[in-house]
Amino acid sequence: MQLHDLGCCHICKLPGRVMGIRVLRFSLVVILVLLLVAGALTALLPSVKEDKMLMLRREIKSQGKSTMDSFTLIMQTYNRTDLLLKLLNHYQAVPNLHKVIVVWNNIGEKAPDELWNSLGPHPIPVIFKQQTANRMRNRLQVFPELETSAVLMVDDDTLISTPDLVFAFSVWQQFPDQIVGFVPRKHVSTSSGIYSYGGFEMQAPGSGNGDQYSMVLIGASFFNSKYLEFFQRQPAAVHALIDDTQNCDDIAMNFIIAKHIGKTSGIFVKPVNMDNLEKETNSGYSGMWHRAEHALQRSYCINKLVNIYGSMPLKYSNIMISQFGFPYANYKRKI
Amino acid sequence: MQLHDLGCCHICKLPGRVMGIRVLRFSLVVILVLLLVAGALTALLPSVKEDKMLMLRREIKSQGKSTMDSFTLIMQTYNRTDLLLKLLNHYQAVPNLHKVIVVWNNIGEKAPDELWNSLGPHPIPVIFKQQTANRMRNRLQVFPELETSAVLMVDDDTLISTPDLVFAFSVWQQFPDQIVGFVPRKHVSTSSGIYSYGGFEMQAPGSGNGDQYSMVLIGASFFNSKYLEFFQRQPAAVHALIDDTQNCDDIAMNFIIAKHIGKTSGIFVKPVNMDNLEKETNSGYSGMWHRAEHALQRSYCINKLVNIYGSMPLKYSNIMISQFGFPYANYKRKI
Repeated sequence: MQLHDLGCCHICKLPGRVMGIRVLRFSLVVILVLLLVAGALTALLPSVKEDKMLMLRREIKSQGKSTMDSFTLIMQTYNRTDLLLKLLNHYQAVPNLHKVIVVWNNIGEKAPDELWNSLGPHPIPVIFKQQTANRMRNRLQVFPELETSAVLMVDDDTLISTPDLVFAFSVWQQFPDQIVGFVPRKHVSTSSGIYSYGGFEMQAPGSGNGDQYSMVLIGASFFNSKYLEFFQRQPAAVHALIDDTQNCDDIAMNFIIAKHIGKTSGIFVKPVNMDNLEKETNSGYSGMWHRAEHALQRSYCINKLVNIYGSMPLKYSNIMISQFGFPYANYKRKI
Repeated sequence: MQLHDLGCCHICKLPGRVMGIRVLRFSLVVILVLLLVAGALTALLPSVKEDKMLMLRREIKSQGKSTMDSFTLIMQTYNRTDLLLKLLNHYQAVPNLHKVIVVWNNIGEKAPDELWNSLGPHPIPVIFKQQTANRMRNRLQVFPELETSAVLMVDDDTLISTPDLVFAFSVWQQFPDQIVGFVPRKHVSTSSGIYSYGGFEMQAPGSGNGDQYSMVLIGASFFNSKYLEFFQRQPAAVHALIDDTQNCDDIAMNFIIAKHIGKTSGIFVKPVNMDNLEKETNSGYSGMWHRAEHALQRSYCINKLVNIYGSMPLKYSNIMISQFGFPYANYKRKI
């Protein structure tokens, strides 16, 4: 059919007709390509090595995973590689874990990447981040490898059971702006206005029944990964305080978060099965909290931080969360 | 000074001068009146009867009280006046209680107003609301006497300790859109799509650890008083269901709230000290739940409500809240 035979509408109809043929051709090509790819995959499946398939599966999963549905474990380690590796064997299998970032504070010593890889395959990627200086606040960097909204931060001597982690993560998903963790602490006011730091052994604040907490320690907790950025943006005096004491990064995080959300910084989840493995290390090194000045430093930090921020932002809470029906019938009255 | 002597500004200055004198006079009068009132009050204080002063204090308090800081106890009662009065003696002294509304379902029998008053003075007002028919849903009316945002609803055989109430109220203040209470229940799905109602004895839903609940019964709970209005606005079929069964008003409330907030209707607070006193009554009457058909009715109600609302709005939760440090050291691990 010639163009001029189509009359005044020929301009309208012609692109349509040509388009129609082009679309048809394009569709056929796409279908053919899809069939070829499908055929290729089916042919290739049985022969792909197990670890390659796992890598492919992990890639697809990590691209599709919503950032709220999984978490990244950040574990800082110093001089207790035996405990670290034992713990990694446990944590690598926890459901909803996306990735592990090991903050390697053993300056000058090579991280065990080769050992780790030789003992693969592993369920999830583990990244060893070699540090240039042994700093407590290294674990609060904004790691480019971190893709999830949630961080699980655990000390390198702390073993938290999987049921505890699965439950606490589900609690964090309901309270994503707070630290959801297993270790509650508090500050107490004294008549002089000087604050002191402690746990249950200290005077319960307020006049009601029971105790209160105003901090949840980050070394066994879930918190929103955006708070790492918040931490980096704090006044230099805060970073200097943490560097001077090699302590108090967790107290600072509680200050930052309480200040930001205007309510209690954390929610305490009572652990069913959480252990400290520090006695099991052969490294001869015990944790920082064994230093003579550790507790006094924590009180010192609280007063310094109040000074830096110009106020006491920590708020008390007495909410303790447990998992309904785990252990079995834990909601029943003990007669 | 005569007006025309003031020149062109006389119009401006005159009101000011006159106003000045008037304001001065007014201030003097006010001061005098205040002094007289103060004097009168001081003179009257020692001679006012104790109950009159209490009434005055209560009036001032109730006008000044924020509606979130106190709650109203609504207790429906049928044929167990001995338990009712025993319970009222306990509940009337609970901190932050604003008022008690007793829903008197003993038709034809006079409510014990006279007895109550003869045993005064009482810490808070107690209103006996004589009902015209013995209906389970009488307790869900929008009572004009109710002034607080929170309702504490308690069955007339349930004794909840004061520490439990004080704590649960503080939890409600943090979650005012949910039922915060002491009795969790759940619905279970079956392969036929028919639902069943029950407690811990039933199959735990989901594949994880522990149990879940999807309802918090209102007969031992705090909830927002606006939900009474919501209840009144429900389809007639819902009210008819409750009237036919003399049951399920609490299940209906959970449906309504879950539907409204799009999340689990309630939060379970584990009671430390809660008792059922039904065995202690001399009335010869035992609670509704002893009827043979009671449990089957509850399952029946769930399916009827799903039918009426066109969906199952209830959502599961496994969050159990306890008070940190009460009883003492309840957060410590049992070894």
